Amino acid sequence: MDALGKHLLLELKDCNRKLLSDLDFLRDTLFSAAREAGAIIVAESFHPFPPYGGVSGMVLIAESHLSIHTWPEHGYAAVDIFTCGNTINPEKAVKLLMRELQAGDSSILEIERGILKSLDEP
Amino acid sequence: MDALGKHLLLELKDCNRKLLSDLDFLRDTLFSAAREAGAIIVAESFHPFPPYGGVSGMVLIAESHLSIHTWPEHGYAAVDIFTCGNTINPEKAVKLLMRELQAGDSSILEIERGILKSLDEP
Repeated sequence: MDALGKHLLLELKDCNRKLLSDLDFLRDTLFSAAREAGAIIVAESFHPFPPYGGVSGMVLIAESHLSIHTWPEHGYAAVDIFTCGNTINPEKAVKLLMRELQAGDSSILEIERGILKSLDEP
Repeated sequence: MDALGKHLLLELKDCNRKLLSDLDFLRDTLFSAAREAGAIIVAESFHPFPPYGGVSGMVLIAESHLSIHTWPEHGYAAVDIFTCGNTINPEKAVKLLMRELQAGDSSILEIERGILKSLDEP
């Protein structure tokens, strides 16, 4: 069965801890990841969390969203790349994020979203 | 092992199609869901997608995020509730969303985020 969307859940571990508390860097990186995937950015929100320096951010794209939540004290970032449509390549965003955050260890879980009977109807 | 976050992926099917294209209603509903869970809202972005009337929205909370993407033409909404910490009850948000969107069929996938060795260290 076809699905409407593809949702990649990235667990990025052993990242560069300094970068994980740099809101401007994280915004630039999420924007670059969206563009690298071929997505069209339509809105964004980022927020810092003192005192640990964690950052949360979301980028709405025409094809769904990217999000990031960082825990600098653990060197960890949780990133989501949720896309729909056939004109987009989320794997390119994954590679960019792993490289830019200097993740020493990472894993990806891929979930299909919107598996609907109506998609298979003629 | 402990995890930093709990991520609920909701597949809401056979929803009220009219509601799925009502941006103001969806914003109010996501805000209510966040508050019902005990979350603190820190930022939000919502965006409509003509011509089908789909809506994408994200609410950043102090405890991570809620997001929604709707496909009114399929009666379907993909909702994420990503939370961290022990003071929050995301299941309350799930119930509210199912009820408000009048989902006739739904499923939930729960994923633990940030399962780290450092969390188990003394």
